[in-house]
Amino acid sequence: MTGFVSLVGAGPGDPELLTLKAVRRLGEADLVLYDALVDTATLDYAERAQRFFVGKRAGRPAIRQDAINRLMIREARRGRRVVRLKCGDPFVFGRGGEEALALAAAGIPCEVIPGISSAIAAPLLAGIPVTHRGLAAAFLVVSGHAETAYGPVLRSLAPGSATIVVLMGMANRAEIARELRAAGWAPRTPAAVLLGVSHPGSDEWHGTLDTLGADILPADADLPGIIVVGAVAGLAGVLSTEDRQHQLSADGTTDVRRQSR
Amino acid sequence: MTGFVSLVGAGPGDPELLTLKAVRRLGEADLVLYDALVDTATLDYAERAQRFFVGKRAGRPAIRQDAINRLMIREARRGRRVVRLKCGDPFVFGRGGEEALALAAAGIPCEVIPGISSAIAAPLLAGIPVTHRGLAAAFLVVSGHAETAYGPVLRSLAPGSATIVVLMGMANRAEIARELRAAGWAPRTPAAVLLGVSHPGSDEWHGTLDTLGADILPADADLPGIIVVGAVAGLAGVLSTEDRQHQLSADGTTDVRRQSR
Repeated sequence: MTGFVSLVGAGPGDPELLTLKAVRRLGEADLVLYDALVDTATLDYAERAQRFFVGKRAGRPAIRQDAINRLMIREARRGRRVVRLKCGDPFVFGRGGEEALALAAAGIPCEVIPGISSAIAAPLLAGIPVTHRGLAAAFLVVSGHAETAYGPVLRSLAPGSATIVVLMGMANRAEIARELRAAGWAPRTPAAVLLGVSHPGSDEWHGTLDTLGADILPADADLPGIIVVGAVAGLAGVLSTEDRQHQLSADGTTDVRRQSR
Repeated sequence: MTGFVSLVGAGPGDPELLTLKAVRRLGEADLVLYDALVDTATLDYAERAQRFFVGKRAGRPAIRQDAINRLMIREARRGRRVVRLKCGDPFVFGRGGEEALALAAAGIPCEVIPGISSAIAAPLLAGIPVTHRGLAAAFLVVSGHAETAYGPVLRSLAPGSATIVVLMGMANRAEIARELRAAGWAPRTPAAVLLGVSHPGSDEWHGTLDTLGADILPADADLPGIIVVGAVAGLAGVLSTEDRQHQLSADGTTDVRRQSR
């Protein structure tokens, strides 16, 4: 008897942004392995499952990736239905592809269920469409974790030709802003930083490329930060529709807004 | 009494990829305005709503965009709860931003509910992670509808620095392949064309950049096609996990697979 592993996207945080299929798989699961940033209310759908936290705490993994892989394989071989619940979408960063490869190599039946990616949903929930007629016909999503990853792509991209969304780039935001300006992006290009969107305690900063690196941002080390650069970021003041304050400053340069869900 | 408009993402097709929030809004709706490519089973959640098709038939809109906007505004002013149901995500192409701006200008309360975007989910469902450690730390999503939109971004991007996902680019795929090769992308870069993923009758083509423009593809004018270019497209043969045939040809160049949901 062989079990089954579902790599499931939990979406950006709000449990209502789970898909019906994710909820069904959680209800059928014997074991749920979940990441940080997965809202614990999400786990209530896994009524009969054992639940293990396998994410990062204070920036360090609670368990190594190869141990997660071994655990999934062992439990599936015992005939259990395993849900590997990942924040956002399983195949947008977060090593979902590596987990799927490990399962395939071990001959474990596996499916991947897409989730709402924060790369698109965090801007959306802040009133920023990543594409917009006349402003952006393309968007680039890039990891801001290491210069070797984001440098070549950000330096080459024709300035203004796409909306840029940087995940995991908070620590390097000054360097990212500097590289974009050096590549010819206009200093007044609208920019936003979205902290913990779809999580309690979320925060936003709105400004421009030339203040992105310099301004002090509201900082909560436990909340993920997403950087958006491009003309569409200027629509946030018009399109943000949640029950939030609209405090775009008169000169349009910087603005900090706070919200709570 | 003022109504309310929800711009709701329906996801890539499969009704199980709706979010819980989308299902709730459909259940509360008085009126649903839906696009082509929205599975009619999705509409069953809108038990008490009037339902109008406002999408494209045979490439032509059934109703003009400004008429859709006026209809939403008029019905909301009559106190009705309107759901504007859009395929994929409301803010990834599809004019969701324009609709939100029109509603904001008219003073109509509006919310935007994210959906699973085909830009990420179509590759995922075909076994292609848009990011993968060692292969891609970035992905670019671009409209292939007009050269003025995709030309500058595709010509500038450093070859191999990001996975490329082209939506609405089937008619221009030969030109897109030519531009990428002229920009320095290796002819043997893996490429895939995903037709109608998450819809009945979906099809896939797998090959390389130098065969992308030349090969005859399975064509169904009613199914949307998504082009993926990048090393990650080479993982499809390993990671595709649905009940499909695995027929990667020995030389790895071209392969047509058929699936049905």
